[in-house]
Amino acid sequence: MTEKIAVLGAGSWGSILANLLDENGNEVRIWSYNPKQVEELNTAHTNSRYMKNFTFSDSMVAYDDLEEAITGVGTILFVVPAQSTRSVAEEVAKILKKTGDRPQIVHASKGIEQSTYQRMSQVLAEAIPQSERKGISVLSGPSQAEDVARRDITLVTAASEDMDAAEHVQKIFMNHYFRVYTNNDIIGVEFGAALKNIIALGAGALYGLGYGDNAKAALMTRGLAEISRLGTSFGADPMTFIGLSGVGDIIVTATSENSRNWRAGNELAKGQTLDEVVDNMGMVIEGVATTKAAYELAQQRGVSMPITEAIYDVLYNGKEIRQAVSDLMRREGKAEF
Amino acid sequence: MTEKIAVLGAGSWGSILANLLDENGNEVRIWSYNPKQVEELNTAHTNSRYMKNFTFSDSMVAYDDLEEAITGVGTILFVVPAQSTRSVAEEVAKILKKTGDRPQIVHASKGIEQSTYQRMSQVLAEAIPQSERKGISVLSGPSQAEDVARRDITLVTAASEDMDAAEHVQKIFMNHYFRVYTNNDIIGVEFGAALKNIIALGAGALYGLGYGDNAKAALMTRGLAEISRLGTSFGADPMTFIGLSGVGDIIVTATSENSRNWRAGNELAKGQTLDEVVDNMGMVIEGVATTKAAYELAQQRGVSMPITEAIYDVLYNGKEIRQAVSDLMRREGKAEF
Repeated sequence: MTEKIAVLGAGSWGSILANLLDENGNEVRIWSYNPKQVEELNTAHTNSRYMKNFTFSDSMVAYDDLEEAITGVGTILFVVPAQSTRSVAEEVAKILKKTGDRPQIVHASKGIEQSTYQRMSQVLAEAIPQSERKGISVLSGPSQAEDVARRDITLVTAASEDMDAAEHVQKIFMNHYFRVYTNNDIIGVEFGAALKNIIALGAGALYGLGYGDNAKAALMTRGLAEISRLGTSFGADPMTFIGLSGVGDIIVTATSENSRNWRAGNELAKGQTLDEVVDNMGMVIEGVATTKAAYELAQQRGVSMPITEAIYDVLYNGKEIRQAVSDLMRREGKAEF
Repeated sequence: MTEKIAVLGAGSWGSILANLLDENGNEVRIWSYNPKQVEELNTAHTNSRYMKNFTFSDSMVAYDDLEEAITGVGTILFVVPAQSTRSVAEEVAKILKKTGDRPQIVHASKGIEQSTYQRMSQVLAEAIPQSERKGISVLSGPSQAEDVARRDITLVTAASEDMDAAEHVQKIFMNHYFRVYTNNDIIGVEFGAALKNIIALGAGALYGLGYGDNAKAALMTRGLAEISRLGTSFGADPMTFIGLSGVGDIIVTATSENSRNWRAGNELAKGQTLDEVVDNMGMVIEGVATTKAAYELAQQRGVSMPITEAIYDVLYNGKEIRQAVSDLMRREGKAEF
């Protein structure tokens, strides 16, 4: 099955997913707000700021004009930063109203909108009226762009309340190295995808402070438990958190030095301030905003999230990081569940 | 609280746990069948074959006579290889009958008895009659001996059907860097502890074959799902598998090159035969026997365990490892749960 697909956002993940969709035989347009990046993608077929040493398919076309990019497509894939999703979606909605197109909406962004605490599928559903689109799905799982770029085997989840939409996502993305499982628990998948970045920050910090593998595994396990508690308080299925977009994504994000959230935690542990880390990284660190959103949601709901609280105190209250980790890891032993 | 404790088995984990119990103020005796090792522990206070560059407490005393080691103790901790637990426990039972001591029984072994498919607590319960002992507990979780040796933070689970027994284990082991949570699901804890070695073998093999982080995370996630399926078919609580002795232990064992099961998988992937790997390792590779036990249990119960089956085919049917991994990872995408 091939179709016209617009990919919005040309960071590392967006551009690699666009290339994969092109490789699967679809007609792919990729949109970026940055004309220089569009020019580079269309002439050199590279995306040098985000993907080193990778040449993109020359049949994939980049646009800096959103209307040109999305007119006539059957699927729009959002891979813009979580905090920009609403504004891009509102632009998309205006265009869809004008053109009368009614595409499938998919996103592969990992975060929670900081001003509303909404998941990305909620933001998309609010910004793009139901009359202007088909279903809304999320593509998520343990998937570093670098591994997909070299066609290493990757297993991900396509989740939607609308199983036809999830199966559509499965069909356009699936190939011999990129395996897509469907799941109907979009709440759990989006919470897992967003909140794992908090754990990645923490794991990077532990490493930077000199803690070992036992401490890392303990943080990831207890972190998964608190993510699951918050997600299920919003109706997520607890099983989702032991799946690809839960534990799978935590493993890849919190044990890999390729993860920018892990690197940010590591830099904080080495004594940089949050502002310095954000400046030096030059890319969005979703975990910083997600920590605030998760902390405030947990407070509202009365859900215990000690790891998130500790990281929040470091990021937003100036708590000394070594003290925060030490306090956290030395809490009194008790029953595990 | 301090008491007399006998630790049976002086491998890396047994000797480090004995040292920890000594450090916590208990009177600790460690038993090994090897008189040379006993001599080294009592004179040089080292255990050079198993723990490099570590000096043990000089108040801990080693014995090669089992009766001397266990007479008068309040707790016996078994840390012998899974396939030797029954024979040692039968010797212990004879001595207890003679002395009239009635100790707490704890084990920290990870495996399933190959001849009976029993978990270690079942083996211990059969070999040591209820009249000769108090409760039976397991101590488990993400805990490499090397990290505990340098007093890095470690979180583990003490599980028993008898919560007084689990709390006893918590009390004797707990200190500022070794945190013990109690859990009443001994079935789930023992299945998690034993079966994670299969996943570690697989993760080592993936790495040896050149696969990346996405594939590793996928293997661990799908592996956790199949371990959970087998465990729950025996009455384990599914929540246990997202705890310290489930996902926690899988993370530490399958992402660390310190794990001997990971190393065995890695050597197999590089072209060594199973016999060569076992010979070269010079230590018991629990995952090899556990794969056979789990494979046969899954067949009996009709539980789907594709990762275990693939590793079984490599270990016992001479299947080419690259083909086995490729077949496994390329199975058709479908619903995740």
